Amino acid sequence: MAKASAAPVKLPKRVYEARVPALREELVRMQVALQSAPFPVLLVIAGNEGAGKGEVVNLLNGWLDPRGVETFAFNEPTDEERERPLMWRFWRCLPPRGRMAIYAGGWHAEALAAEPRGRREFDEFERNLAHLAHFEEILAADGALIVKIWLQLSRREQRDRLRALEADPDTAWRVTEDDWNHHRDYKRRNTLAERMRRATSAPATPWHIIGAADTRARNLAVADLLLARFAAHRKLRPEPAPGKPQPVRPLRPAGLRRLRALPLQRELSEDDYESSRDKWLGRLNRAVRDAAQLGRSIVWVFEGWDAAGKGGAIRRLTSAIDARDCRVIPVAKPTDEEKAHHYLWRFWRHIPRAGRVTVYDRSWYGRVLVERIEGFCTAAEWRRAYDELNEFEAQLTDHGTIVLKFWLHLSKDEQLRRFRQREETAYKQHKINAEDWRNRRRWDAYEICVGDMLALTDRPNAPWQLIPADNKRFARLEILKTSCKQIAAALA
Amino acid sequence: MAKASAAPVKLPKRVYEARVPALREELVRMQVALQSAPFPVLLVIAGNEGAGKGEVVNLLNGWLDPRGVETFAFNEPTDEERERPLMWRFWRCLPPRGRMAIYAGGWHAEALAAEPRGRREFDEFERNLAHLAHFEEILAADGALIVKIWLQLSRREQRDRLRALEADPDTAWRVTEDDWNHHRDYKRRNTLAERMRRATSAPATPWHIIGAADTRARNLAVADLLLARFAAHRKLRPEPAPGKPQPVRPLRPAGLRRLRALPLQRELSEDDYESSRDKWLGRLNRAVRDAAQLGRSIVWVFEGWDAAGKGGAIRRLTSAIDARDCRVIPVAKPTDEEKAHHYLWRFWRHIPRAGRVTVYDRSWYGRVLVERIEGFCTAAEWRRAYDELNEFEAQLTDHGTIVLKFWLHLSKDEQLRRFRQREETAYKQHKINAEDWRNRRRWDAYEICVGDMLALTDRPNAPWQLIPADNKRFARLEILKTSCKQIAAALA
Repeated sequence: MAKASAAPVKLPKRVYEARVPALREELVRMQVALQSAPFPVLLVIAGNEGAGKGEVVNLLNGWLDPRGVETFAFNEPTDEERERPLMWRFWRCLPPRGRMAIYAGGWHAEALAAEPRGRREFDEFERNLAHLAHFEEILAADGALIVKIWLQLSRREQRDRLRALEADPDTAWRVTEDDWNHHRDYKRRNTLAERMRRATSAPATPWHIIGAADTRARNLAVADLLLARFAAHRKLRPEPAPGKPQPVRPLRPAGLRRLRALPLQRELSEDDYESSRDKWLGRLNRAVRDAAQLGRSIVWVFEGWDAAGKGGAIRRLTSAIDARDCRVIPVAKPTDEEKAHHYLWRFWRHIPRAGRVTVYDRSWYGRVLVERIEGFCTAAEWRRAYDELNEFEAQLTDHGTIVLKFWLHLSKDEQLRRFRQREETAYKQHKINAEDWRNRRRWDAYEICVGDMLALTDRPNAPWQLIPADNKRFARLEILKTSCKQIAAALA
Repeated sequence: MAKASAAPVKLPKRVYEARVPALREELVRMQVALQSAPFPVLLVIAGNEGAGKGEVVNLLNGWLDPRGVETFAFNEPTDEERERPLMWRFWRCLPPRGRMAIYAGGWHAEALAAEPRGRREFDEFERNLAHLAHFEEILAADGALIVKIWLQLSRREQRDRLRALEADPDTAWRVTEDDWNHHRDYKRRNTLAERMRRATSAPATPWHIIGAADTRARNLAVADLLLARFAAHRKLRPEPAPGKPQPVRPLRPAGLRRLRALPLQRELSEDDYESSRDKWLGRLNRAVRDAAQLGRSIVWVFEGWDAAGKGGAIRRLTSAIDARDCRVIPVAKPTDEEKAHHYLWRFWRHIPRAGRVTVYDRSWYGRVLVERIEGFCTAAEWRRAYDELNEFEAQLTDHGTIVLKFWLHLSKDEQLRRFRQREETAYKQHKINAEDWRNRRRWDAYEICVGDMLALTDRPNAPWQLIPADNKRFARLEILKTSCKQIAAALA
């Protein structure tokens, strides 16, 4: 990361004006090419106060076709944003593949504005930066082109720039007392920005420092850089080949052993169930209300074999929760808007507000289950997904969201019995189809994937609960009890 | 609208319990049928305080499969909602076709909570109700099944109910001082509710009053009603036949005359343009900032012939606006999520927050232009669309949003010249395709549709500005000037 120094001689106006028309044409050509490219472009324009972030953003918008680009600035979060994990507001502003977004100040502005001072504040600052770095890392891994530009001014250049803005009656209003305060605090703020850039630099997502003292040179440098990164990225990223099913071998046999060791023959009589059920439903109702009063939201994740009873368990569970505070999200085929985004985008969409509940009926774990088995994603993609899923859940729990994950486990015989029963019962026939039978033939492969999932994504902040589900009553009651305990522990 | 009186004898528990299992099965069957139905189901559960809205909503959620239904309650609007027109928050909570939503209190709760007293407040109350009625009317016309239930308690029943809730330690917390205040104010509030129901009743969206004193009878009545309405609706609504192009004849020849009378030969020299442009861009910049400071948002609508220069005009316009406050929405083929909703849903999505700007490059007027011509919607649909579009814009302008609508008009010869130029210029070739030539062959039909659009949707709150666009410079300057004037007038 080389620090640019101000050019001693400024770029002459006629040189600049001679270059602009060709540059604009190239930018629009880039946009046309982008339309059919399998990735989005994210352009961050950050920099010191007075370096002209807003100017550059507006200039680019003028040069580009505004129909293919959207601009975001992250000022004060709205209350809907504040009630969700930090990164939610950035996820909701991501362009789909084939489109471009410009971020004035980037998602980094908020972290920088925090002005950490003591040790604890610095720790939080670093933690926030780690979230941002991870955000960029997984988007880049998914193919996004992320171009991050830091417009740099030295202390002296900043002073000159602020003075020049003040001297012009058309721009004087843009210089505030805050700008001068920031200027006096230049050294500390500059060090902070360096720390930020270091923490969020990676080979795929480097920071580019562009000297901003010479505004014309700055403008050309920004456009040139964008064009160069786009051209290089496009060459690197050929249209992805559709995947195909691969042989499945365990990554972590311990998970498979844990799964197989689960005793499935659990008995619970109708009477015992009836007598306990209402007690636990009442407790769950209180636990959820207690969480809501503290502004804590809850996310339930239900995974399990076909016919393991996820639907019934969810029904039982939600019957204890006020329907006005609860959403059940059935996870099926993604919509085309969802397909045009990172695979986690469709789950971020439904993250609940403070005090609310979302129940995911199947979830982001599809990435390491069905997508792994069917080859819907590449081996590299599902392999890195374990970390991505852990980090996603860490972001939820760091925010205070309580994450409850259930795997409903079934014996192969019991599944067969239930499939047959569904086929024979008129109003259950819609619940069974060829795909269920197909998945059943791949039982062993699924078992391996579930084992790996358990081994690699069972974390103290979001542990997996294995539920023996051959006996439906036992499973339902177990889910109620475990949920109550986990919520109580999280609130303690 | 018959008023139910409390049943003198309550429904025995055993009768109730004997009916419930079959009812639940029917409800789930309904949900399965709904999945492939070409309409959504909207169920409103409203009623007097203490009538058990929450209870009924939760009960239904327990009976239904929670994966196919979502529940909403409109409490305090969030700040993102408050910054947009009244109906935005309801549009964002609509289920797509094939799914169901339950609204506790409905979208009517807020209007009822207003407690109008003087003449002016009553006028506003009635105006809000008219918006709600219109909302229901257009959704119903689009095929939605809207079932609205009012759970009714007499004054005495309400008192008994509140007392019973207070007597039970498990439910005592649910009775607040407010409930008793409402009870003392029963007569006035009941009259208000009657007025609300009258104002929002229509043949397709009637209110059903269900006596709520006997909770078991109430529960059965709600479920029975929902099932009956669904069954009847499904019979009435066969899968819609795909449309086909129809001969186009003018509805209002005056519009066509106005269009044809527009002088297209307007000259503006390069020099005159250059000298005026910056002045008007500066004025526009100030006008938009003035609007933002007052929290007023702006919506620009650009319609016009292919190659009329919409893109260039939008670029010129947005160059005067801070990109961070402005979004350009290119309106092309709807996504599958958009297709699963009412045709206005995709435009409501992008309505700007307070002080922000949205530019629609093509718009909701596609309904009465391309959709009318190509038969993408039925004759009944595009015929009623004029009113729907007027009402949509009235909702925006009532909220304070400034709506600027431009039709860029071109001679047929000039279009031909531009098409040829596009084909001959390498970097413009992506801007011309077979569809453009196809649309050109239907010039006369489009002209008629544009004329009807002008005649039927040119309103004082959102007038159409006809822009002669054979000369691009003239058109761009005209758009800048007209926009400045219209914004200034709106702020005056």
